[in-house]
Amino acid sequence: MLTFVLVHGGWHDGSCWDEVVRHLEDAGHKAFAPTIAGNGKDADRRVNHAICTASVVDFIVERDIRDFVLVGHSYGGTIIAKVAEAVPERIERLLFWDAFVLLDGQCLFDETPQNVAASEAGARQSGDDTYLPTFDLVRDVFFNSVGREDALRFYARWSPQPMQPFRDRLDFKKFHSLPIPKSFLLCTEDIRVPMPELSWHPRFSNRLGRFRFVSMPGDHEALFTSPLLLAKKLIEAGRP
Amino acid sequence: MLTFVLVHGGWHDGSCWDEVVRHLEDAGHKAFAPTIAGNGKDADRRVNHAICTASVVDFIVERDIRDFVLVGHSYGGTIIAKVAEAVPERIERLLFWDAFVLLDGQCLFDETPQNVAASEAGARQSGDDTYLPTFDLVRDVFFNSVGREDALRFYARWSPQPMQPFRDRLDFKKFHSLPIPKSFLLCTEDIRVPMPELSWHPRFSNRLGRFRFVSMPGDHEALFTSPLLLAKKLIEAGRP
Amino acid sequence: MLTFVLVHGGWHDGSCWDEVVRHLEDAGHKAFAPTIAGNGKDADRRVNHAICTASVVDFIVERDIRDFVLVGHSYGGTIIAKVAEAVPERIERLLFWDAFVLLDGQCLFDETPQNVAASEAGARQSGDDTYLPTFDLVRDVFFNSVGREDALRFYARWSPQPMQPFRDRLDFKKFHSLPIPKSFLLCTEDIRVPMPELSWHPRFSNRLGRFRFVSMPGDHEALFTSPLLLAKKLIEAGRP
Repeated sequence: MLTFVLVHGGWHDGSCWDEVVRHLEDAGHKAFAPTIAGNGKDADRRVNHAICTASVVDFIVERDIRDFVLVGHSYGGTIIAKVAEAVPERIERLLFWDAFVLLDGQCLFDETPQNVAASEAGARQSGDDTYLPTFDLVRDVFFNSVGREDALRFYARWSPQPMQPFRDRLDFKKFHSLPIPKSFLLCTEDIRVPMPELSWHPRFSNRLGRFRFVSMPGDHEALFTSPLLLAKKLIEAGRP
Repeated sequence: MLTFVLVHGGWHDGSCWDEVVRHLEDAGHKAFAPTIAGNGKDADRRVNHAICTASVVDFIVERDIRDFVLVGHSYGGTIIAKVAEAVPERIERLLFWDAFVLLDGQCLFDETPQNVAASEAGARQSGDDTYLPTFDLVRDVFFNSVGREDALRFYARWSPQPMQPFRDRLDFKKFHSLPIPKSFLLCTEDIRVPMPELSWHPRFSNRLGRFRFVSMPGDHEALFTSPLLLAKKLIEAGRP
Repeated sequence: MLTFVLVHGGWHDGSCWDEVVRHLEDAGHKAFAPTIAGNGKDADRRVNHAICTASVVDFIVERDIRDFVLVGHSYGGTIIAKVAEAVPERIERLLFWDAFVLLDGQCLFDETPQNVAASEAGARQSGDDTYLPTFDLVRDVFFNSVGREDALRFYARWSPQPMQPFRDRLDFKKFHSLPIPKSFLLCTEDIRVPMPELSWHPRFSNRLGRFRFVSMPGDHEALFTSPLLLAKKLIEAGRP
């Protein structure tokens, strides 16, 4: 029996893992899916990366969750790396699923230069420093494995993403020296555009040093588009 | 219900899509598979790239085909890019299946430097400026997923390819600014040799800008070797 | 009906192919799995690469095996390349399965710079110039597709690997000019760490010149972790 703490990516909140949590529980495992501060339909969006990290650390410490697999999806990869620095002794394994693995001193925007201009323009217009791309901008890139109706249904679960956590430069010196076992789960139809290198893997995965590699067919939104297979692969990537 | 116009690659003709067309129709879709000028068993091979493009444009306009997914396979990618420049308003989506996506000013030979010498030597010997590689040269590279007997059967459907369309430098300035949605379908066992980079994807696919990525197991000749799965993936890549 | 000679990788011996051999035989094929000199539980470990190669050549010549597919796994790729130089007329096809394909003048260590220090330190401590990494070092990287119990069971079949064959610089001029057909079989979840490029494919595979590419889901130890599928794919990659 494994315990998972699932940390969502940008534009998502903890409820986006509902189907995955159900499948993990059906398989006899335990799973928590906190919402990062600043995310979710009705959140206070005045956050930075430190506040976001603290919200997940608090979630773990308040419930005294121990011996768990800490999963980060996409932007969530930057969160779990900082959470691991805060409570390393509680974590059995770090599992990056199509997630950013930043170098010491980087911010997330450093790895998405193609998106910065549109994101910052959106943030200025938003009134609360958030950005939500239109459906047309993300339909093909994020929901490529499903039809339009499904894509619309899943997109409706997104909410505006605070931009400050994407701008904050982060100290990852401790993270990159932590001896916690690490895994990288790749969805093979998940691309970032434009993608001058194969970004998720091997670009980000290899920054983990030694890691366990697991892959599955699927797109960036497999928590919606393929939750049963994702749960199965999280177990495969997360087990001892 | 989708409408497809399927544009074959080098050495092929429209009839090579027969099995795929049948599977698309069985799934309730409509599909046309024109033969590019200069291709096919009994064609007049004195063509250049402009004549080839015009033959597909004419096919579409004569039948007044509208609101369709325009698919290009391999060399066919260079044709559909020029067809899209000619009749952009008719096209719902461009779908490149293991296809060349050329930069402005390139010719196809620019992206296959390893093949130019043999192709040009063959063209000189042919008497009609065409080239047909021997079965032994292509068996492993194009038909890698099937046994020898099947490979021989499929190879028998090839015919000599005019070389001039591979030499013609092409203006793609308009193509690269067209707002038509684009997809790239990759067969994961399709390689070009020698392959200094991963050519079909992400090398060519990323030239499309934003695109939908779909992949399937299969080789370069999946229209023969895996027509049912190919039809399924063309629908997945081609739907709105 | 095909005949296979299966050459294992480092830390393995011929018996590691037992399950694969059974599946190949069940499918009507014939398979031999020699143990390379210096490998196996009770071997004399004072070998170099030439002795290792000779042991496989002797195995083939003594049994007068002809018209066979010569398979090399991992380190075994460096052995089959030299065996092919010795008895090219006997070999129908060379099949590299997640195997090293070295350039002329290289040694295996040239392609695993990240492992040299630990390997050499282990060799010095061993007393017999061998190295066996701990289970913890290899569990995630080699046995990523299976659970811990299975991984432990398979690891127990490993034995210390002589290091001299990894140090020997090898003349591959003849190998790279041999006209024997070649195949590369890739397990898509097999990674080497750290992996600055995609090492097995296309890095090593493309050194073969023209080759047949076949892939399957699986890790580096698929002869233990997925023997039935591996047998099926060896047939697909090995047939004429």
